[in-house]
Amino acid sequence: MTVAEGSPVTIVATDAENQPVRTPQLEALYRGFEAESLVPLWTEIGDLMPPSPRSKAAPHRWRWDALLPMAERAGELVPVGRGGERRAIALANPGLGGRPFATPTLWAAIQYLNPGEDAPVHRHTQNAFRFVVEGEGVWTVVNGDPVAMRRGDFLPQAGWHWHGHHNVTDRPMAWIDGLDIPFQYLAESTFFEPGPDEIESREAPERSRSERLWGHPGLRPLTHLSPAPSTPLLAYRWEYTDRALADQLALEAEGHRATVEPGHAAVRYANPTTGGDVMPTLRAEFHRLTPGTETAATREVGSSVYQVFDGAGQVTVGEHGWTVERGDLFVVPSWQPLTLATEQGLDLFRFSDTPIFERLHQHRVQHDTAEGNAQ
Amino acid sequence: MTVAEGSPVTIVATDAENQPVRTPQLEALYRGFEAESLVPLWTEIGDLMPPSPRSKAAPHRWRWDALLPMAERAGELVPVGRGGERRAIALANPGLGGRPFATPTLWAAIQYLNPGEDAPVHRHTQNAFRFVVEGEGVWTVVNGDPVAMRRGDFLPQAGWHWHGHHNVTDRPMAWIDGLDIPFQYLAESTFFEPGPDEIESREAPERSRSERLWGHPGLRPLTHLSPAPSTPLLAYRWEYTDRALADQLALEAEGHRATVEPGHAAVRYANPTTGGDVMPTLRAEFHRLTPGTETAATREVGSSVYQVFDGAGQVTVGEHGWTVERGDLFVVPSWQPLTLATEQGLDLFRFSDTPIFERLHQHRVQHDTAEGNAQ
Amino acid sequence: MTVAEGSPVTIVATDAENQPVRTPQLEALYRGFEAESLVPLWTEIGDLMPPSPRSKAAPHRWRWDALLPMAERAGELVPVGRGGERRAIALANPGLGGRPFATPTLWAAIQYLNPGEDAPVHRHTQNAFRFVVEGEGVWTVVNGDPVAMRRGDFLPQAGWHWHGHHNVTDRPMAWIDGLDIPFQYLAESTFFEPGPDEIESREAPERSRSERLWGHPGLRPLTHLSPAPSTPLLAYRWEYTDRALADQLALEAEGHRATVEPGHAAVRYANPTTGGDVMPTLRAEFHRLTPGTETAATREVGSSVYQVFDGAGQVTVGEHGWTVERGDLFVVPSWQPLTLATEQGLDLFRFSDTPIFERLHQHRVQHDTAEGNAQ
Amino acid sequence: MTVAEGSPVTIVATDAENQPVRTPQLEALYRGFEAESLVPLWTEIGDLMPPSPRSKAAPHRWRWDALLPMAERAGELVPVGRGGERRAIALANPGLGGRPFATPTLWAAIQYLNPGEDAPVHRHTQNAFRFVVEGEGVWTVVNGDPVAMRRGDFLPQAGWHWHGHHNVTDRPMAWIDGLDIPFQYLAESTFFEPGPDEIESREAPERSRSERLWGHPGLRPLTHLSPAPSTPLLAYRWEYTDRALADQLALEAEGHRATVEPGHAAVRYANPTTGGDVMPTLRAEFHRLTPGTETAATREVGSSVYQVFDGAGQVTVGEHGWTVERGDLFVVPSWQPLTLATEQGLDLFRFSDTPIFERLHQHRVQHDTAEGNAQ
Repeated sequence: MTVAEGSPVTIVATDAENQPVRTPQLEALYRGFEAESLVPLWTEIGDLMPPSPRSKAAPHRWRWDALLPMAERAGELVPVGRGGERRAIALANPGLGGRPFATPTLWAAIQYLNPGEDAPVHRHTQNAFRFVVEGEGVWTVVNGDPVAMRRGDFLPQAGWHWHGHHNVTDRPMAWIDGLDIPFQYLAESTFFEPGPDEIESREAPERSRSERLWGHPGLRPLTHLSPAPSTPLLAYRWEYTDRALADQLALEAEGHRATVEPGHAAVRYANPTTGGDVMPTLRAEFHRLTPGTETAATREVGSSVYQVFDGAGQVTVGEHGWTVERGDLFVVPSWQPLTLATEQGLDLFRFSDTPIFERLHQHRVQHDTAEGNAQ
Repeated sequence: MTVAEGSPVTIVATDAENQPVRTPQLEALYRGFEAESLVPLWTEIGDLMPPSPRSKAAPHRWRWDALLPMAERAGELVPVGRGGERRAIALANPGLGGRPFATPTLWAAIQYLNPGEDAPVHRHTQNAFRFVVEGEGVWTVVNGDPVAMRRGDFLPQAGWHWHGHHNVTDRPMAWIDGLDIPFQYLAESTFFEPGPDEIESREAPERSRSERLWGHPGLRPLTHLSPAPSTPLLAYRWEYTDRALADQLALEAEGHRATVEPGHAAVRYANPTTGGDVMPTLRAEFHRLTPGTETAATREVGSSVYQVFDGAGQVTVGEHGWTVERGDLFVVPSWQPLTLATEQGLDLFRFSDTPIFERLHQHRVQHDTAEGNAQ
Repeated sequence: MTVAEGSPVTIVATDAENQPVRTPQLEALYRGFEAESLVPLWTEIGDLMPPSPRSKAAPHRWRWDALLPMAERAGELVPVGRGGERRAIALANPGLGGRPFATPTLWAAIQYLNPGEDAPVHRHTQNAFRFVVEGEGVWTVVNGDPVAMRRGDFLPQAGWHWHGHHNVTDRPMAWIDGLDIPFQYLAESTFFEPGPDEIESREAPERSRSERLWGHPGLRPLTHLSPAPSTPLLAYRWEYTDRALADQLALEAEGHRATVEPGHAAVRYANPTTGGDVMPTLRAEFHRLTPGTETAATREVGSSVYQVFDGAGQVTVGEHGWTVERGDLFVVPSWQPLTLATEQGLDLFRFSDTPIFERLHQHRVQHDTAEGNAQ
Repeated sequence: MTVAEGSPVTIVATDAENQPVRTPQLEALYRGFEAESLVPLWTEIGDLMPPSPRSKAAPHRWRWDALLPMAERAGELVPVGRGGERRAIALANPGLGGRPFATPTLWAAIQYLNPGEDAPVHRHTQNAFRFVVEGEGVWTVVNGDPVAMRRGDFLPQAGWHWHGHHNVTDRPMAWIDGLDIPFQYLAESTFFEPGPDEIESREAPERSRSERLWGHPGLRPLTHLSPAPSTPLLAYRWEYTDRALADQLALEAEGHRATVEPGHAAVRYANPTTGGDVMPTLRAEFHRLTPGTETAATREVGSSVYQVFDGAGQVTVGEHGWTVERGDLFVVPSWQPLTLATEQGLDLFRFSDTPIFERLHQHRVQHDTAEGNAQ
């Protein structure tokens, strides 16, 4: 996608219909357009303005048992330090030209830190989070506040916060990073600044200061009353997520409305200062399907990345389908219908770019129902 | 940018510093990454996460006296009708690989309609507007409401409104279209639907129904009280814009705060139901510089397209500079500093993608002042 | 309503049902309550918690031909100056105990200024406006900006703006003031500060600076882009209001949706920075009924004051009814149904406290329709 | 405050300065005003528009050891049932004319329910909550969801929710009710509806359905994603409040910003769907002072009611002062400065009408600091 300045314009009809006959006069006009850096709409409209989104991204799955060994090997071969900044290996969607983009807007990578290592301090406008599918031992230090990372935790790090990671234990640890790197790269809004050479803190407390201020349900400290664009809570612990999902399924069993559809519990991670998404460009959710559940097909504008947290199941995205297990990741491109099914039960972490489309009034969602499509 | 599915990943370090030595073991790991559709961060970070936005787009100017004759020639050679939909010729930024993108997010085109022609009815999720630098005679029909287009008018058409154009006069007419086509193309949110074969109305009233409902300053019809994401006012007439700018300059002369900087008056087109931008992704403004004015350099996240409406001047964008005259268009890429200067006076229409960045908390602006940069 | 501290509590059942029998033991308990400044709910609930609002305010009309001569007489007998501050005579609702409250929340008064007089400069947290039913010659000076007052103009003055008035002509002038004085008095939020002894300006320009910055439909000065809680436009001129109403009726005649109901056009005065009400506690509207129109009965939470601007008609409020003519004022208490009818046509200015209830989620409105009540 | 219609207007100067001399002509004019239900501003302005709020309400304290025995006695003498609806005994501020108003906007009462009793089901537009200073055994049933009430719990019940209470234990229970009854009474927005004769549920679960859906920090059920004007969480349990306050004090001890001022921890109860106040008119907070703490004086627009939850201390409100102990209640009128001091530590529940003033842009607060008043 890096293009030299002055790359020539070449007008060829894409798949637009009803093209005018290519007479010599028209060819001369097209050469004139090219000379003046112009392109007509009528040759391009088929690609630019399809009836509904046609994603360049492919539905794709990455297997954890392929991904994790490569991260471990990188742990042996590649140092972590200033310049490369992170030992992170990104999902490169096969439809997106070899760029490290899971979808046109989302980055997803496995990151790996050896015992005793630090990932250096920096900040950037990209919004980020960590999600831990297994392991523990790393603390991510956000604006000086060390936050423990453990299995099942969701750890948001909104844009322009200083952050580094340290591993003070004797075991390596791997986790998943999610960011809006491709979106900000395409929109051209990215700033980056390296931090101090030394990480601010090597403490390893059980609970972060953020959790002690913000981790009490429905309670806000009087010192922090303004709405913040991103969540100030830096760790959403697995014990709460797990309990919330269990409560929803128990309420469903008692006959109350609590689940998205039968056997399908789900929570959204929220910014306690607004009730909205954790970050302006990123949505994060956790879904639990009980054994024997199959979801109705749903498609929506924007793209998602899922990681299997537990259990196993069958995923169908448009015309693709896979069996997925613990740690596996897959992407759902824009407007591709998704169906999930499981025999043994399935716990899934999901993140998406939906807040972008909601804030710009471009969001649409379509749920299949027994009566047909409801848009 | 159209990439075949399954295009191979090839890992080459971009301009990131401190790359690990390419040992045979590391090369083997990189081949493994490629086989699994993975790309490491450390080879890509230099391109993906620069210190500040490095736009792929080039600062560029298109001359009206080159553009308009080509549109006229297209008027002779290319019919308007279903399929091609519009006789519109887009600015193709030389930095963006030959695509019809003025900037990574914005579309700008000249559109041309012969006497007696109709541009067919359709709707799309892309937000659009027309701006008229000269001529008249076309009515754009929006959800059945015919809206006259005349020199100096700004005519917004928010996403998913039915619209077509008709020219019931005996003269051709050209104007500028602005849309968020590239943004929605990259974000993959675009829907398109063709309308009825016949345009709904060939009436040519002086004032549209929209203006009769919404064109009275500070007054809202009691039938329409909810905030709307896009402006319901379909024509912002030149007479009001001109008078508002003249009023600002007169207030400045009387010693009151009314202009952006000395000799520089400016208005933003606003949605009367919210006071905000006319459309969720597009900002539109009109700027007037008095003779002898030179603006302070300003840069901001996001990109802009300007058209000279009247007068002439010198434009500097980063290291590029041009003299511009009536009808000329130029683009300002993200984070490139812009300076305007004029001996004889300069009237400029501007549109930009700034609402995207403001709504996603990614906006930054930096003004040069006598005391240095204030960010 | 001014009550001495320590006023005794006396427990008497109001109109609550099912009161316990007043045994000696109960009487002793009630005396104990009184001694401890306590009152039981069960004796009071009938008054405090009725099935729907029972306003203390009476529906009432004041005749302009009684009001204006008294204002003129006050012009002869009562000076204007610091201390009394304004020669304003307030409507005192007969249901509200002799207080100068048109309704429990709204103040409405006729104000009168002789040739050559100044009303002294002050500011207060109460939101205010002027409406002119006849005459001209006074300028209200708001934060130093002189604003002409003429027949049909609506002139808002939000809380905590400095303001005074001057009459530089050789004729007296009367107009209507509307404020939220009773609301802020009961809620106890009022601050007041006298200004400089001399009015800042005796200029008498045709257009205020405010209008020159803000009076252009759909256009905002780039110097003032933040949302403001109250409108920065200090004059809503009659010519625009009149034209907006005429446009609505013409659109109705052409078959388009533009009026509230057949023959009933209406505009709301809006804050151009938000699209919402002109002030946080006050709504202002103008209604026009064509000859022969009768409105459907409507009732809503909160109270209104109307002034007849032109024409004549019949007003019904609950079980009260009056014929009204130019200049007459009447009040509609909370939840009282209102019907308007006119043979010859009727132009009405209205203001209300509705924003209070909308912002506090207490608003309800009920429209009578052919099918019955729709709430 | 119940005033007969047609009560006569009597014009007497209040404390306004610079009154015109009462000549016979002026007296005649005043009699004319009275006849026409008019009152001049100049005789009233001193009372209506003081320099800063002069509350009619008195600072006052009610002692728990006087209040509770009266509630117990009412439990013997007064039945609970339809008509009286609740065995609630309200604080009647000595400045407010014997009405059951703790402040001009707030209601506070002790409510008492005997073993086996039900308080009947109803709904009303008044916003309400319960706070429990001691005891347990009652469940409040909100829209069919039984919610346990225990010491330290805050239990909001927003307007227009069906609710009743039942006591299925063998002990009586007392608690505090807070509502916006006086505000809605004065503003005239109150609706009331009795419910079914039988309470919907006599279940007594440990956790309500509301808590199971909403009681997980930072997590929202996907079934309920819209912002709600009032909190859907029906119980804020003491264990979380207590822990949040302890965490703040521990953070302070470690050198981090977490408390309002040294030794003064505080949380606000929040609506998890917006991050804002629990109800549109009511704010609720919990404050903890460590032994030896004295707060800086603070005054703000609007009024508050406090209840001592634990410990003891000295309260100063303007020129009043009291020693307070567990269960004692006191009120702080608008703009009266408040100081709290404690030797042994003090836990305080507080509620106030502040959201009214914030939403209407009438709020002001002034904190005393070492450097003097900062407003």
